[in-house]
Order: sequence, then structure tokens, then C-alpha cells
Amino acid sequence: MDLQFLQDLIVPAQTKIAMIIMDGLGGLPLEPGGKAELETARTPNLDALAAQSALGLTMPVGPGITVESGPGHLSIFGYDPIQYRIGRGMLEAVGIDFELGPNDVAARGNFCAMDAAGVVTDRRAGRIPTQASRELAKLLTTKIDDVEFFVETVKEHRLAIIVRGTGLGVALTGSDPLRNGVPPLPVRALKSDSEKTARLVNQFIKRARSLLADKHPANMILVRGFDHHPGFPKFPELFGLRAAAIAVNSTYRGIAKLVGMQVLKVEGSAVADEFTTLEKNWNDFDFFYLHVKNTDLAGEDGDFARKVRVIEEVDALLPRLLALKPDVVIVGGDHSTPAVLKSHSWHPVPTLLYAKYVRADGIAEFGERACARGSLGVLPAKDLMPIALANAQRLTKFGA
Amino acid sequence: MDLQFLQDLIVPAQTKIAMIIMDGLGGLPLEPGGKAELETARTPNLDALAAQSALGLTMPVGPGITVESGPGHLSIFGYDPIQYRIGRGMLEAVGIDFELGPNDVAARGNFCAMDAAGVVTDRRAGRIPTQASRELAKLLTTKIDDVEFFVETVKEHRLAIIVRGTGLGVALTGSDPLRNGVPPLPVRALKSDSEKTARLVNQFIKRARSLLADKHPANMILVRGFDHHPGFPKFPELFGLRAAAIAVNSTYRGIAKLVGMQVLKVEGSAVADEFTTLEKNWNDFDFFYLHVKNTDLAGEDGDFARKVRVIEEVDALLPRLLALKPDVVIVGGDHSTPAVLKSHSWHPVPTLLYAKYVRADGIAEFGERACARGSLGVLPAKDLMPIALANAQRLTKFGA
Repeated sequence: MDLQFLQDLIVPAQTKIAMIIMDGLGGLPLEPGGKAELETARTPNLDALAAQSALGLTMPVGPGITVESGPGHLSIFGYDPIQYRIGRGMLEAVGIDFELGPNDVAARGNFCAMDAAGVVTDRRAGRIPTQASRELAKLLTTKIDDVEFFVETVKEHRLAIIVRGTGLGVALTGSDPLRNGVPPLPVRALKSDSEKTARLVNQFIKRARSLLADKHPANMILVRGFDHHPGFPKFPELFGLRAAAIAVNSTYRGIAKLVGMQVLKVEGSAVADEFTTLEKNWNDFDFFYLHVKNTDLAGEDGDFARKVRVIEEVDALLPRLLALKPDVVIVGGDHSTPAVLKSHSWHPVPTLLYAKYVRADGIAEFGERACARGSLGVLPAKDLMPIALANAQRLTKFGA
Repeated sequence: MDLQFLQDLIVPAQTKIAMIIMDGLGGLPLEPGGKAELETARTPNLDALAAQSALGLTMPVGPGITVESGPGHLSIFGYDPIQYRIGRGMLEAVGIDFELGPNDVAARGNFCAMDAAGVVTDRRAGRIPTQASRELAKLLTTKIDDVEFFVETVKEHRLAIIVRGTGLGVALTGSDPLRNGVPPLPVRALKSDSEKTARLVNQFIKRARSLLADKHPANMILVRGFDHHPGFPKFPELFGLRAAAIAVNSTYRGIAKLVGMQVLKVEGSAVADEFTTLEKNWNDFDFFYLHVKNTDLAGEDGDFARKVRVIEEVDALLPRLLALKPDVVIVGGDHSTPAVLKSHSWHPVPTLLYAKYVRADGIAEFGERACARGSLGVLPAKDLMPIALANAQRLTKFGA
């Protein structure tokens, strides 16, 4: 079922959809036979909502496939992430509100530490402070031949590098070896249309190395994930929804902006601040995406107890959403990040969908095994949007 | 999600995957409300493994579709059996280790009994002994015009017929009427590129009839399933796995060889002998496919009790596999063969997937209804391989 098919069925309605995405929500027990993070968390509000919801487990891309944030989010926004692809650099550039031109190339950059032998000793340059990173980034912004290089700090060691010029293909390998203890790689063109880009990017990197020579631990840069703006069909037009995104972290703000959502300003950075933003803007939009980052960070850190606490924090805030009387509520995640694995994983993600006319499963529990018993089954995450639209009475009959 | 997508995500790991396939495993109760074969069998080892596994039901091709061994196996090996097709003749030829040339055409043949009126009275020629079959096959190997016909006994009445020459298309109908009481059919070309093949095969059959005239009950041959070597992408390269196949029956050895697995020699023909082969070769491969034929044969014979006993035999051998400490274990089947139907059927196949980081369902029972409650849901059998690879930590993230 492609997006055009769905778009042709859209009808207007006075209904609101709220999607709460806890990043990396899905988990695993610490011990065989134990409970996963979400099953361990005390979540009376989510459990009560689950009882009135349809439950299921979402797969971001397909069985067994672990995803990065980009494809994980595209999927919950209804886009097939195999068909619609985003480079990491593009996400970073859009996330920091860089005004991209149609031919600009964006890449993800890292400040890193390199030793005298040219070996990368710390891919994250000791996570240098954001302000120091900004100062160094200014040094690197330059022009080589007819091509401009903009270097912008995202946060700490993380950079967005935008290359502006003509004839710049993006079929390139990255210079980031993705591990410490080895030298950076040369950037190579995979197609002839990208040879100019490769040549200039290698010059740019060489120049950066020289400029940063005495700036240890940020004495080198690594570059990867080159891409043009993908020009995806826009979420608000596809689905007929005035759509707002509430996220603190730039990557998620970037993804939302790439699909045309309006990214709202959040005063503060706590989940409660995000709920305040939701309340303030409730009357002005039909669809809200609210992103919670700390579930994923706790999972990546292997901190089971902290992930549990973040889930409990969201649970405690849920009544503020429900007080707004949303017509459809989805609570789910973009992928799993089990604390026991300290990384994203392939496990399907617990998901609930509440609406007035949803066929509720009557399972008064929100967790991995509860969702495995739910009537949504194990479903592609991209199927959530059509189900949400149907429950929001925003899809007409097919075949009429 | 196609094979190329998956192949691009493969990373190396020091992990081992074992796949135990009980042919025709899925069943049905003898009486409504009763238990199926697997549910009836006493399987303490499988039940204990199920408790630590994710359970589900696999569909070889799609809902309602009953399969032959070829597509059933391609699917569990991760290939879409609608896209990747094998002729039955090719399976037989590869299974008996016939050295096929790239342009060779292979067909499945049967010795059969025919009466004076030209009506087939026994499509299996009384299952003549293999040795007698071999003697007769020798009579039939011949050359017509510039084309060679090799006739090789597979077992009893079953033959592989290989046609070697140039300009031999394979768009042909078979001569086998697939039931007794009617005459054989003429072989017809369905496309013009196959007219030469049709003409020569009909001449070959006419010649065989004359040579076998006094050999009742093997006084005729039936031919079907013409095909070239399919040249599929190879399993070991696709998935980065040194892959071994352990099977006694030639058909399954043939399928495994067609996808590039190394087919191991089994001393003896009992399931226990297959487990001995597994143990002996454990250190040399990353992936093991172990095939159990007798579940299917018992099902085909309508022998419910015997199918139960074969399952119990496998259950008793399971600890020998587990003692090898496999990282991922799949126990399933290529299709269902309910004894009550005496044939392959469309019913999804009970399947368990055990691994250290699998999200276990905690269902301590391996059976049709237990698997219907499992978190793998009802899934295409071809999705098992990506899930197995993920659990073997052999897939990297998508979208990095």
C-alpha cells in the first residue's frame, strides 16, 4: 500500500492524533525469564490506557533488521524506510536549522583525536564542550575552488558539514573508520559523478588536519553519510494533517522537518517541558509527534534502572495528554534499545493505539509480552499511520 | 526486503546457527478438539527449549498455499519461493550429484506400468527395487540427433532425466498425467524456443516405450518438471555463513547444494546418524541445516502414531545439539503434512527460535496452538533467516 493510494483516501475531520515516541522503548529482561524495562516499570496510566487500546509490536523495517533513528522514524511517520532514505548528514543539517539549498551536499562530521602516527585514538574527541566545538568549526568553514564548505557544530564533537557548489554527486565512502585504533579512510567516489566531491572533500580534510594540528583532543575530523536533500512527499499534504513535532534533540527535529512537520519550540529540555509545549499548541494542530530521548540513552548506557525511571516519568505525564481529549493516541517507539545489549536492536517495539472506536484488546498492561498478545500483531511500523488515520475518521472508503 | 538489502547488512561474527527441519512437521488433530501430532508427542526437551524461545507459525509461500519440498525449503533458507523457482527435475539431478552443464535440461522421471490399451495402471511401477531401476535406466540413456539423454535412477521408480544439447528451451508440459487410469500425455512446447526439446523428448519417450515393452511393471516412463539450473545467489555468500547440510534423502541434499551449501556425508540413515554428523562437523561451519524426513513420510501414509514417534525421536536427540552450545536454534518444518490429510497441506508450521537475546515468550510448550500464541506471529518462512541472523549478531544497523 503506497503513499499515493493512502493520500487518495484522505478526507478532512475535526480530530486530533497524538503520537508519543519513547526512543528505543523495546527491551529485554536482564535474566532469562525476567521482565523487560517496560514490563518492570510501574505504569498505572499506560496500563489503564492499554486496557482501552489495541496492542501490537512494530517492526521498523522488517524482521531481524536493526535501524538507526532515521529509518526508525520515517517508518512510524508512515514512510517505507527502504524506499525513502536519508543520509545522516542531512538529518544533522536539517536538525540545526541550516538553510539548505537544493544542490547542497550534507555530511555528518565528528571532531576526533588522532596520534602522531595518524591513528584515531578517540572518535569523539573526548566529547569536547559544544562551545569549544563551535570555535573550532569556525576555523574550518572555507572555500576550495568554486565550492563552499560550511562546518556547523550540532553538539559537542558532532558536526554537520554542508558542501555547496555544482556537479557534486554524493556516491561517496566516508572517512570515519567507525572505530578507534585505525587511521581515517580516504573518501572515495563510488560513481564518476561524485569524483569532484571526493577530491574536494579530501582536500578539505587535509586542510582541517593542518588547521587543527595543535587542538588535541580535537585535532582531526571524520566525515560520513553524504547526501542531498531527499525531497520526500510532505507529511501534512500526504495525510491532510496540520502536523507538529515536539522534540529536544536535533536529529529528531531534523527528521520531522524533513517530512514537513512544524517543529515547535520547547522551553527547557525535560519531558515535562515537552508536554507543556503540547498543551500550549493543542488547538493549532491535528497531529502531534512527541519524542522522548532518554529511554534510548539509558538503553545505550546499559542502565536498565534509568530506562525504567524514564518510562515511569512518561507514564506520570500521560494524564496531561489525556486531559486534552485526543481522538487517537499512539504510544510506541522507533526501535528497541535493550539495556542488556547497550545498543539498538531488531526486537519489535511495544505499541498501543487508543481511540474511541478502536477494537480494544482488554489487556490492562503495556509491555513486550502483553503487546505480543495484542490484536495488532507484529506489524510494520509504517502501518500505524493508516490505522491512526482510520481511527481519526480521516480515511474514506476504497472502491466507492 | 530483498536478498540484496539483507546482504548489504551482513557482518562477520563467531556464532553458530542450527536449523532442525522436520519435514511436514505441522499437523491436525484426528478429531475436532483433539491434539495435532506435535501436540500429542511427549517432547520434554522441545518444551523446555520453547520456554526460552520465541514461537510462531511459518507460511512457506503465503496464506492458503500448499508447497512441494522445493519452495518449502527455499523459503526456510531465506529465498522468496515465488521469485526463486526450481524444477523438480533439477532437484533430482542435483540430489544424485549429477554434474550438470550450464545448458542442461533436467526433468523428473518415473518408471510406470501401462496396460495394452496405453493406460497408466501404476504411476510408480510397483516401486521397483532401486537396483532393477538402475539396470533399466541404463537401457534408456541415448543420443537423438545432436542431443544426449542421460537417465539416472534416484530411488526405486524415481528418475532424473538430463537432456544435453543446444537450443533446448524448458517451457514444456509434462507427460505424467499425475493419476492412474489414463494414458500419458504428449509433451507440448509452451513457447517456440522449446519446440526442439518437445520434439526430441517425445521421440525419447516413444523409444523408451519400445525398449521397455517386456519390462512390466516398469514398461513405460513418465516425465515432468523440465528446467535449467536456476543459478540462484549462493546462501554462504548472501549470508556470510559457512553452511552445511545434513540430509539423507537426495531431494533435500539437492536443494541444499543448489543454494551452495556443503552437503555432508551421513554414515547411516537414522536421525541419530544425522546428529552424529552434526557433532563431527560442528567446528567447521557457522550454519547447519539438519533435515528429518520421516515426519513427512508418516504424515503422507496417514500414520498419526508414527509421526508422533518420529517427533519424539527428534526430541530425545535435541540435547546432543544443545550440548554443542549453538547461538541460535530454529526448530520447524518446510510445510505441514497432517496424517489426517495424508498429504502436504497449507497449514502454517510450528516454529521455535531460541537464542541468548531472543525475546522469549515464556510458553513452555512446542505445538500448533502454543506457537499461535507466540510473538513471531504467523510469518513468512523466508523471514526466519533475517531473524536468525539478527540473533546471531550477524546484521549491522540499517541507516547508519
